[in-house]
Parts: sequence; C-alpha cells; structure tokens
Amino acid sequence: MGVIDIDAAPRKTGSIYPAPYDALVAGRSSIRLGEAGRLTQFGVNMVILEPGAKSSMRHWHMHEDEFVMVTEGEVTLVQDAGPVVMRPGACAAFPAGVADGHHFINHTKDEARFLVVGTKAPREVATYPDDDLRVELVEGAATFTRHDGSPYPPVDGDER
Amino acid sequence: MGVIDIDAAPRKTGSIYPAPYDALVAGRSSIRLGEAGRLTQFGVNMVILEPGAKSSMRHWHMHEDEFVMVTEGEVTLVQDAGPVVMRPGACAAFPAGVADGHHFINHTKDEARFLVVGTKAPREVATYPDDDLRVELVEGAATFTRHDGSPYPPVDGDER
Repeated sequence: MGVIDIDAAPRKTGSIYPAPYDALVAGRSSIRLGEAGRLTQFGVNMVILEPGAKSSMRHWHMHEDEFVMVTEGEVTLVQDAGPVVMRPGACAAFPAGVADGHHFINHTKDEARFLVVGTKAPREVATYPDDDLRVELVEGAATFTRHDGSPYPPVDGDER
Repeated sequence: MGVIDIDAAPRKTGSIYPAPYDALVAGRSSIRLGEAGRLTQFGVNMVILEPGAKSSMRHWHMHEDEFVMVTEGEVTLVQDAGPVVMRPGACAAFPAGVADGHHFINHTKDEARFLVVGTKAPREVATYPDDDLRVELVEGAATFTRHDGSPYPPVDGDER
C-alpha cells in the first residue's frame, strides 16, 4: 500500500442502531480510509456530518481507544462536562474504559468532517449513558441490550 | 479525556537512531497527541518537517499498522515504486508486514505537517531496506542490528 485513493474508498451510510435510535444519525456518512488502505489493527474513517447531524448516540468504549481530529467545518463535542466547539486541527482522545460518553453534533449550516481512529478489539462493549442501551460487538457482530443486560428490543412478554 | 490541549502536549525532537543515522532526521519534530490524550493502544503524533527534513529512514513495520494524513504543506512519500507528492487531505496506509519501506521528505521551502497513527505492539521489528540496519523494540527498548542480526554498531573484533 501507500497513498489511499480516497475517491475509490468504501462509503458508509445508515446505522447498526435498532429503531428508533437509527434515525438519530441521519445525515451522517463516512469514508472508510483504513479499510481502503488494508489496515486491520485500527479503523480509520473520515466522518461527514451534514448540518444538524450527529456522529452517534453519546457512548463510551470499554476496550477500544478512540482519537478524533476535526478537518473541516465546526463540530460540537458533548461529554458529561458539557459541549465544546471544535474546529479544524482540534483533536480529542477517548481512552478505553473511561465512562464518559461522547458524540459530535454539527450545529452549523455547513458540512463538517472529522477523522476518527479506533482500535479494533476482538470483543467490545459500548455503553450509551443517555439511553437505556448498550451493545456488545464480537468479531463485528452486534448485540444490543438494556443497561441491565436484558434484550433490546424487548421480547414478547417483557414488562418494560 | 476529551479535547487535547495541543500547546501543552509533549514535543519530541532527536532520534533513537545510532550514529551516523541520527543526523538523517535533523529538522524533524513531533507533537505527541496520543500521549497527551492518555491513549495507550496506538500512538498518534503530529510530525513537523522543516524544509529539507525527512520523517525517518525508509522503513517497514513487521507487526504494526501505520496510517498518515497530510495536514499542512507538501511532503514526498518514497516507497519501492518511487516518489509521490502528497498535499493536505491526502492519506496513506502501511499495513503491518508489507516489506515496502516508506518515508516522507519535505522538498519544499515551507514547513510541512502530517498526522501519523501507529499501533503499539508489545514487540516490533522495523527494517531499513536502504541501509544494513534493523531495530527490534520490546516494550519501547530499542536494539539495533545489521539485517543478518549481528550487532550495530559493530563490536570490537567484528571484521565488517
């Protein structure tokens, strides 16, 4: 490998979130740079947020480090401490296991982009503190549950 | 963690290369963003190349994936296939174990910068194809040898 042909790199839209959460990330897409470059140890994506779009539900990772650098436009990072506006060149880090959920929102009228890098752990758990939801990922297969481990979506007879 | 205070991040200059190779990377420095963000699974550095500076000797990694995005100025990537000029937004990937050495040179009169991400493997071997040199890194401690595994620098009595 060497230089990545960005125009030929895979693009991803949509979400693995179960309904109704999937609608929360409308207007988000990503260019899968790491996959295009045949990297397997960490993922590298250029995330594109249309005006009003969110990167994800607010979440934190149990086993995977994550790094972000804004490259275009302006995004708002939200964590427990509140919102922070980030502009091109600004960087953020989310070490594995730190239980402070984060996501990025484009509150502007222009497209925004950020580069995101995340370790590819064989097993991962992401927790969504603002919603009663978590996901376990095993070799890429996702299983969503409530925070207490019960199934999501609720199965028949579930009294929730 | 969250937003990284880039002005307060550790800076690195100099080289672990043994003489005379250490002089090859004069004019190179880096901002240790991943360390500032308390990431441990992969390294993230903003490499700054003064005019004429090289990022490293041409090398390839046995066990560690590497990703680069140019953020400022213009750099020339050199691999077996020859040189390619890269400008801001251009990305490159170097999957672990692919025996095609790479480095970046700033042939311009202005400073250039690129973001580099590399896995932190517990053991790593980097090979320098243009020079009779390789390095083994174990938990961060570097041992340089010739390609055939004999010590570098040569010990007394070595007939090389």
